[in-house]
Amino acid sequence: MSDVWIAGAGMTRFGKREETLQDLVAEAALAALGAASVEIPDAIVVATMNPEEFVGEGNFASHIATYLGFSHVPALRVETATSSGAAALFAGFAAVAAGLQRSVLVVGGEKMTHLSTPRVSELISRSIDPHERSYGATMPALAGLVTRVLMAKLGVSLREISQVAVKNHANALLNPFAHFQKRVTLDDVLESRVVADPLRLLHCCPISDGAAALLLTAERTGIRIAGIGQGADYLAVRYRDSLTSFRATEAAAEAAYRMAGFGPERVEVAEVHDAFAPFELIALEDLGLLPPGKAVRATMSGETALDGRLPVNPSGGLKARGHALAATGLAQLVELVWQLTGSATGRQVEARVGLAHSIGGLATNNWVTLLERVT
Amino acid sequence: MSDVWIAGAGMTRFGKREETLQDLVAEAALAALGAASVEIPDAIVVATMNPEEFVGEGNFASHIATYLGFSHVPALRVETATSSGAAALFAGFAAVAAGLQRSVLVVGGEKMTHLSTPRVSELISRSIDPHERSYGATMPALAGLVTRVLMAKLGVSLREISQVAVKNHANALLNPFAHFQKRVTLDDVLESRVVADPLRLLHCCPISDGAAALLLTAERTGIRIAGIGQGADYLAVRYRDSLTSFRATEAAAEAAYRMAGFGPERVEVAEVHDAFAPFELIALEDLGLLPPGKAVRATMSGETALDGRLPVNPSGGLKARGHALAATGLAQLVELVWQLTGSATGRQVEARVGLAHSIGGLATNNWVTLLERVT
Repeated sequence: MSDVWIAGAGMTRFGKREETLQDLVAEAALAALGAASVEIPDAIVVATMNPEEFVGEGNFASHIATYLGFSHVPALRVETATSSGAAALFAGFAAVAAGLQRSVLVVGGEKMTHLSTPRVSELISRSIDPHERSYGATMPALAGLVTRVLMAKLGVSLREISQVAVKNHANALLNPFAHFQKRVTLDDVLESRVVADPLRLLHCCPISDGAAALLLTAERTGIRIAGIGQGADYLAVRYRDSLTSFRATEAAAEAAYRMAGFGPERVEVAEVHDAFAPFELIALEDLGLLPPGKAVRATMSGETALDGRLPVNPSGGLKARGHALAATGLAQLVELVWQLTGSATGRQVEARVGLAHSIGGLATNNWVTLLERVT
Repeated sequence: MSDVWIAGAGMTRFGKREETLQDLVAEAALAALGAASVEIPDAIVVATMNPEEFVGEGNFASHIATYLGFSHVPALRVETATSSGAAALFAGFAAVAAGLQRSVLVVGGEKMTHLSTPRVSELISRSIDPHERSYGATMPALAGLVTRVLMAKLGVSLREISQVAVKNHANALLNPFAHFQKRVTLDDVLESRVVADPLRLLHCCPISDGAAALLLTAERTGIRIAGIGQGADYLAVRYRDSLTSFRATEAAAEAAYRMAGFGPERVEVAEVHDAFAPFELIALEDLGLLPPGKAVRATMSGETALDGRLPVNPSGGLKARGHALAATGLAQLVELVWQLTGSATGRQVEARVGLAHSIGGLATNNWVTLLERVT
């Protein structure tokens, strides 16, 4: 297996965007190609969760290839619900690692804000087990359930959970690509309207438009994909052994660390899937970045802040950088590339190894990717 | 790059099926695992073109993994419109070739017959360039256009084109997995109702439900994936250099032959994408299986019949075995595995090398796969 390197990274600003999905994807793709000084990639992997219903287009890989002016470049689409971007990275990684392609453009994007929130919520909730959905389960409802268990079982308070949102909004304030540039306080979070009890609006990520892209290559650059792992779990939440730990994250992390040949001790910056604020606390422990039961204290003490021992979600995370579904898993990696290469102006941390963690569905299909600076 | 082998193949009968998509996929998957004597694969690649709108489900890779009882096995979905099955094979192939996984279940399926034909047609037509679609273009309409050019430019008659359908229906009569078991004559084809002038009903593939699966492995078996290639073309038909040749097929074939280290001269049986009868004639020449301008004569003389020099679509092809979209690219390979291993009872041909050719959209995203028996 050949090593796989990142030659370029690019993304759009996340947020409520007026551009089409095609334009957003093109902006990110051309930014990544430009950063890599590559004119035409050997192949394209496109991540998008549901272009048919979000924007009314099918055959989307060919659509994007043509739109980019690369109609003769092979393209395929990969989907694993909200972690599609990370899954697309894996597909590109495998093709380069096998020696099948020398350079692969991996690009993910989503456009949703032109639809009504109930419609977007309905479409995203198709990721949930049909039986649970038939009882009215939505993503925030199930996340509320997880939060309740976390609070009851581990004694975590809503105030502590809210600190994740405060931290990530503070980081996003320094990120020009973020959906939100707005400082929020603990009281703001606790006083925002209820979405799915006990979760309030400011515990939840927004519906964002956006795109992100990476150019993978077999040629050595300064940034290596050191490990990539996928983990899976029951579609149905009711079959899970635990709700305060996600098996899919643990399995993905184990696989990624195994491939990398090192463990969480070498991770110095992390982008984790905080679609709901408590998920960041769960992730930090599932990933082995903090010992069991220590994530709350570390967050409250500033250990995961931008100037802390282990900066988590320097981009602002899904919470404040925003969550453009299939773009998100790649946007996390774009942020890590920028952090590892000293290009994260205004929010730069010192790190050689970064970890990205992406959740598909309600933690049914999760990915962990490890990037390493080797220059 | 490691060699990649096929350890097992299985499929459902294609046709109007009452089962759910999940059941069809499970039937094919379990047949392939059973044939391979593998209990649990390392990973799953799921191909389905549009489960959201065809059956109302998202997060489909996780859905299928859980449904199969493999909720802890990593799964992802791949899509390239009507060639999704072949694209999924590539994704599985790359992962095994790179040494990332030892065994990958690749399974594709589609369920459409519960929807009205206009609705299915509308959803499939989303694969067409939006500008051309805005003028009312549908897949059969564009195929009719291609057929007209073929007739006018190359002097091919509708009677000659119809022989493809007659041959493929005759083959399907011997295939218990085929959608149709009905002999048709040239007159039947020519007298069937017009779908998109000059194409008549019996020139067109049916809307089929079905699923097909392969178990890929890094361990040597009797059947090797010798080559796999992808080719691409403009989404818009109006930008193409030619309508009597598909660039995406030529490029896919060139890439597959290059990987295999041999050319069309070694191919002894082929499954080609005859969604419309004239496409088989175009494919045979684009694939280099017949010299330019010779496909019609070869078809009329029986050279591509089951007992001819080069049997084409022994399964009955999309025309008569049926076209269950994302299942089709894999069903072609299942047929080839059966043919190469002497398991195609009643329609067995003598071959060591087989070629499968799958078209995505209106030939925007095509794949060619070469299988070789090495025992």
